[in-house]
Parts: sequence; C-alpha cells; structure tokens
Amino acid sequence: MRVVDLIEKKRDGVKLSSGEINYLIENYVSGNIPDYQMSALLMAIFFKGLDKDETNALVKEMLNSGDTVDLSKIDGIKLDKHSTGGVGDKTSLVIGPIIASCGLKLAKMSGRGLGHTGGTIDKLESIAGFNVSLSEDDFFKQVNDIGIAIVGQSKNLVPADKLLYALRDVTGTVPSIPLIAGSIMSKKLASGADKIVLDVKVGSGAFMKSVDEATELAQTMVDIGSSFGKEVVALITNMDEPLGSAIGNALEVEEALETLLGKGPDDFTKLCFRISEELLTLAGVVNPKDKIKEVIENKSAYNKFLEMIEAQGGNINLILNDELPKPNGIKEYKAKSSGYIIKIDAEEVGKAAMLLGAGRANKDDSIDMSVGLKMKCKVGDFVNLGDEIVEIHYNNSYDEVIKNLDEIITISSEKPQKLPIIHKKIEKSSN
Amino acid sequence: MRVVDLIEKKRDGVKLSSGEINYLIENYVSGNIPDYQMSALLMAIFFKGLDKDETNALVKEMLNSGDTVDLSKIDGIKLDKHSTGGVGDKTSLVIGPIIASCGLKLAKMSGRGLGHTGGTIDKLESIAGFNVSLSEDDFFKQVNDIGIAIVGQSKNLVPADKLLYALRDVTGTVPSIPLIAGSIMSKKLASGADKIVLDVKVGSGAFMKSVDEATELAQTMVDIGSSFGKEVVALITNMDEPLGSAIGNALEVEEALETLLGKGPDDFTKLCFRISEELLTLAGVVNPKDKIKEVIENKSAYNKFLEMIEAQGGNINLILNDELPKPNGIKEYKAKSSGYIIKIDAEEVGKAAMLLGAGRANKDDSIDMSVGLKMKCKVGDFVNLGDEIVEIHYNNSYDEVIKNLDEIITISSEKPQKLPIIHKKIEKSSN
Repeated sequence: MRVVDLIEKKRDGVKLSSGEINYLIENYVSGNIPDYQMSALLMAIFFKGLDKDETNALVKEMLNSGDTVDLSKIDGIKLDKHSTGGVGDKTSLVIGPIIASCGLKLAKMSGRGLGHTGGTIDKLESIAGFNVSLSEDDFFKQVNDIGIAIVGQSKNLVPADKLLYALRDVTGTVPSIPLIAGSIMSKKLASGADKIVLDVKVGSGAFMKSVDEATELAQTMVDIGSSFGKEVVALITNMDEPLGSAIGNALEVEEALETLLGKGPDDFTKLCFRISEELLTLAGVVNPKDKIKEVIENKSAYNKFLEMIEAQGGNINLILNDELPKPNGIKEYKAKSSGYIIKIDAEEVGKAAMLLGAGRANKDDSIDMSVGLKMKCKVGDFVNLGDEIVEIHYNNSYDEVIKNLDEIITISSEKPQKLPIIHKKIEKSSN
Repeated sequence: MRVVDLIEKKRDGVKLSSGEINYLIENYVSGNIPDYQMSALLMAIFFKGLDKDETNALVKEMLNSGDTVDLSKIDGIKLDKHSTGGVGDKTSLVIGPIIASCGLKLAKMSGRGLGHTGGTIDKLESIAGFNVSLSEDDFFKQVNDIGIAIVGQSKNLVPADKLLYALRDVTGTVPSIPLIAGSIMSKKLASGADKIVLDVKVGSGAFMKSVDEATELAQTMVDIGSSFGKEVVALITNMDEPLGSAIGNALEVEEALETLLGKGPDDFTKLCFRISEELLTLAGVVNPKDKIKEVIENKSAYNKFLEMIEAQGGNINLILNDELPKPNGIKEYKAKSSGYIIKIDAEEVGKAAMLLGAGRANKDDSIDMSVGLKMKCKVGDFVNLGDEIVEIHYNNSYDEVIKNLDEIITISSEKPQKLPIIHKKIEKSSN
C-alpha cells in the first residue's frame, strides 16, 4: 500500500476501505507516515468527507491507538454528557449532581479550558482542595458510593487524536465534520460510558455556525455511538450569546450552585434540566421531569454537589460561607444607549474573560479563579441608557475589556427575534 | 502572517495576495514553513485553484528562488520549445536543426527521462562522445556560431520547483493545472528564451487526459508567458499512441535523422514541421512552410544536426556508417488476429521500453542506449493475423514485453476514428 495512492483515492472521492484507514492511522501514530502526507490527506478529507463506514473505521483505529477506560467496576448504567464547547458552559456542574441525586451514575472525565472556552476541571479547582486526579480505583469507588465523580483524564486515551488534532490545528483542517465527530466520539467511547447525551452548540460563540452544520455533526456523532453499541442522543443548543450570566471560574461555580437551588438564569436552567431529562430517559427513568423538579426542590441535587466536593477533598465551608475566590474589584459596565440588546458576541465575551485572567491563551498559562464577567442582560432585553449591563470582576486592569464590550454588545431600537436555547434533538438514524 | 490563516483562506476559496504568496514560497524554500503546512496548502490549491494573479505571483517567487539564464550574449531572437512529455517524443532533435538551418537560434536546456518517458539528453548521449555539459560561454558561443546547442541544465534554476515537486509527488497534489503550469513556466522563463512554443500532449500516454484539460493547461501557460513579456503559443497534440515509430534512445536518434531527410513517420513529421512553423512565425519568418520544405529537401537541416553533434564532441561517423548502438537481437511481435488497430497504449509502450532497459525506473538507474521498440503499426491501420507489428530490440529477455504487448495493442473488426496529431492551437487570451 502506498500512502500517496490512498491520498489520491480520497482526493478523487473514492471510498477508503477499513483496511486502508487502519493502515493510515496505525502508521501515522507509529511515525511511519510523515506529517506532510497526513496533512494532505486531512485536507482531501476536508473537501471530500468520510462516509459512515470510513468514519467508523477511523474511530475504531483511533480507539485502538491508546487505552480505554473499563467502567465495569461501577454498578449499573454509566451515563456521560459532552458539550462541544461554549462560553459560560458550566452545565456539567449542575447535570452531574442532578443525575447522581436521582440515583444514577455519572463517571465524568473532563478537560481544561483553552482560548475563549473554559474547562470544567478548571472551574472545580476554584474550590480550594478539590482534587481532579483520583486513582482509577478511587474514581470507581466514589461513583459507586455517591453516584458522581468529575476528574481529569488520566490514562493515555486516544493518542492518535492528540497527534491528529495538533496537525489539523496548524494545517487548516479542523472544521471537517467527520474529523470533529471522530475526535469527540473516539474520546467519549474510550471513556467507557453506556449512554451519552451530546450538547452540540451552534452560533457565533460555537464552532458550528449554522443549525444545519450542527445537525450534521450531531447526527454523525449519534450514529458513531450507535455503531459502537452505545445509546447516544444529541441536542442542538444555542451559543449565539454566552450561556447563563457568569463567565469565569469561581463565578461559574456560584452560578451552578444557584441553579441547583432553582435560582439560576433561565436559559442555563432550561438547558441543564433538558440534558438531565435526556440522560434520565436513556437510563429508563419514568417521569424524568418530575424527578428533576423533586431533587431541585428538596435540595438533594445541591447537597449532592457538596457531597462530591467533599469526597474529592474540596472545602465546602468556602461554598457555605461564600468564600470562593473574590476579585479585588467589580467594575460596572453601563449601556451606552437605550434600546434592545440585539447581540452579545459569545466568543468575544470568552476572550474578554481570558483577558481578565480567567482563561488561558496558551496551554501552560496559569489562570485566575476570581475574575470574569457577569452579564446582567440577555439578547432581547430592553435596557435604558446608563443601566448596568455587565459586571467586570477584575484583579488588575479592566480598561481593554471595557473597550471590547463596546463592540461585543449591540443595542438597537428594533426588538430582535429571541432564539430558543434548544433548537432540536437528534436521535439515531433509522437506516 | 500565520501560515494556517493563509491555508484556510485558500481552502475557503479566497484569493491570496502577491505578498502572501511571496511569504509562502520564500519561507518554504528557506525551511521556515514545514512540509506539512505546504502539503495542506497544495491540496487546498488542488481543490480551489489559483487565479491568474496568484499564478503569476507563484511563478515570480519561484523564479526568484534561484538563478536565471541570461541569453543576451546570444545575438538575435532566442527560441525555445517545450513538450509536456510523451512516449516516442524526439521532436527537439528534428525541430532544433530545422530552426537553426533557417538561420534562427535555439539555445536548449533539456532533461533526462524518468518512468515511461524518455529525455532528449539521454537520446543524444547514444551518440558516443556527445557532451551535454557545456560551460555557459561555450553554450552561448555554439548557439551564436551554428544556431543550436542542446545541453543539460547546469545552473540552479528554480530550486523552489524542485522542493515543491518532490512534495507534490508524494502528497497527491501533482495534477493541479496552475501548479503544473507554474512549474513548467518558471523553468522556461528561467531558461531565458524570448519566444516559446509549447507542445501540450493529451491522451492516454499524457498527463492531460482530455482536450479540455490540456486546453486549460496550455492557456494558463501561454498567459503566464505573456504576463512575463514573452511570446508563447501552444499546440494541443495527440498522445493516445506513441509519437512516430521508435521508442528507445538510439532508435529515436535514427528516426529523427530519417525525419530530417524527409523520410520520417507521418504523424511525427507533421508535428515537427508544425512546431517549427510556429517557432518561425514567432520569429517573424515569412512563408515558414516553404522555408521548412527547403531545408529538408536541400538537407541543410540534416547537415545542421550533424554539425551540432560534431560541435558537441559527438562522433558523426557513427551516424554516417549506421554504427549507433545496436542490440543483441530483434524479436518480431506479430498480430494475434486480423483487424484494425484500435488502441496502442502509449504509457504502457513507454513502460515496456523501460523494461527492456531503455528508460529509468529510478533517477539513478543507468540506461541501455541500444534497446527499445519499433512500432510497425499505427492506430487505424488494418493488419492481418501474423503480420509483424512491433520490433523488439533487446539485449536480455523480451518475454515479459511480449506478454505486455498482448495487452497494449488492441485489434478489432471495427475501424476506429483516427485522431489528428494536432488538436488545436492556443494563443494569448484577449483580456
């Protein structure tokens, strides 16, 4: 087999066999295929795509490239959720406790943030003492005991994806639906859950800019899951503006706690409840909506959060006494005119939070847990000139952020159409 | 400027500026841009193309990457011709002497053969003593004195093309019209001629498989020439079957000599005369057809060939006494049935000649000057069962070649449509 022949085949729109995809991934990971051939192949895939069989073969070889997590030591159905990433997305912090307080299991491996998006692991580390590096046995034991654990990725899961992603990142081959789907699903499958709900973001702050694109990505991922014997559903959800109000690590933990007490922002609450409902439904729970209402109202979801924090070494007194990291100051940002908020650029809000220190520009940057933004307005709200519409939680300078906010938030006399937080649900293809 | 942004720009069909193309080529040649980014860009160019401005910027930077030949020490108009490569293509050996015997100048730098195509330089070296490595001064002097010299490339012309071609060859990015045109034309422009005739081959034995494709390539090259102040025309010519009868080094020199004496194969003679006519027309010669007829009939073209051989150290007695390298044996290949020859696969004929030793599978292989094939039939001929249709000139084994010829030549009861040797002429775009 010659690599150049396989590149030409894909370039000319001819389907690659499983054996050929096996050969390509295996030899790329082992260093026998050079980056310059793989990047040409990836660009050909960008243009010509991969069909269902090719995508499944890719996922299979990516899984084979590293370790997989065997969750069989955890009793019962293991649930998982995944978001394609957005600004202000702290859903795991709410959904996990809801699921666990309903008696189900969420054994979650999460990532750190990069660029304009935050990471669940970073957010949890704003609670002093919280340990994201449990041993596998401790991880399993905690999930068996209390139904939930959220940790960083420990094993060498899908090294092929790390290599491929690093190459795609510098060769303009990231935005390919089968490659994105393969990257996400190989990691999800390697993490070992039985049933998965995917939250596919769409909008200016998301990777997918249109509902059609997001639908294609979601369908591809759901079908991959199904091909590998997992039950997977996806929701297409709005990321045209930040999710909820808080952007920044401690701020987001606080918002998650409020939401678990039933006092969270409307859009964020709706989304968390709906994803939880889908997870409970996959697990065979009857009347999932009622169940969620119950664990919120009786505070068992809130208490489950505290239980998890304590189990992983976090100091819950910091939460109970409102002592999570606080910034030096809070600067009000005021509306420059009266009118309707017609746009809040989610990606730029994420970058503004990064500028304050809440996120990383580079992998090795340290982050400031106390800073961030609190949006006091949502798209569709009417504001008057001088109304406080953003709180800037800062430790150092906020001047540049204020300048950026002038561009990020658009006010107009015309009332905009408000997009729903959830666009649609995607289930397994019928064929 | 970030390379990944430029790759994405091209991937998304956005035009690259001259400054951006300059940056890409300059930094690729200097090693600052890695192969894996260049190969992704090349694949994006395969799919999205390059427009006229982009192609001209590419050619300009490729020219800048190395030396150029200054032919100003040669008096008068300097002509050149280039063929995109085919099987049995010994046109330079006939056209050069015709042009020079008409009093014009052809200062030709030629290449060696690789794969199924032969090289002019290799063919000339079948004449013992012939020196293809003249100093620049000797090269200029010989062209001034006798009107013609054919040498190998000495200077470091277009190193960017060498790097890019090596990368394209292993990444499935060879068949891109602007990249092919840029590669050919940068070398032609670096070689310094004023007026150029391009012979763009089309058919099963050529890189371009359809007249439309060949036309696009030819038009692109002619327009590049024109943008750089050169007069260039192109002919689209047939390479569905080998050109002429002889394939193999000494055999092709012999056929060139016969053609200079007016006794060459019909298709090959027509093509050589037509390209010569176009060159003479570019040089302002009136009644070029009559002029060509004259130099053939009075043998001055034939004598010019001998004059060139002698000037470059070749032993013309070998030619005069029919002592060019001869094989150990000649094996007749006979028609397996009666009927019309409907196909002679040019590329496979080239490979059969290579198998006999006439060509190189790899750059460093040595070649056997005496072996090759002599086709005794052309597409459209009627042959009877048992007629000799190919002579196999061999030194070692011919068994495999005979087996291959069974596949290469197709005989049928139905008379095929005979394609013309010249499809069309391409001149500078009017815009």
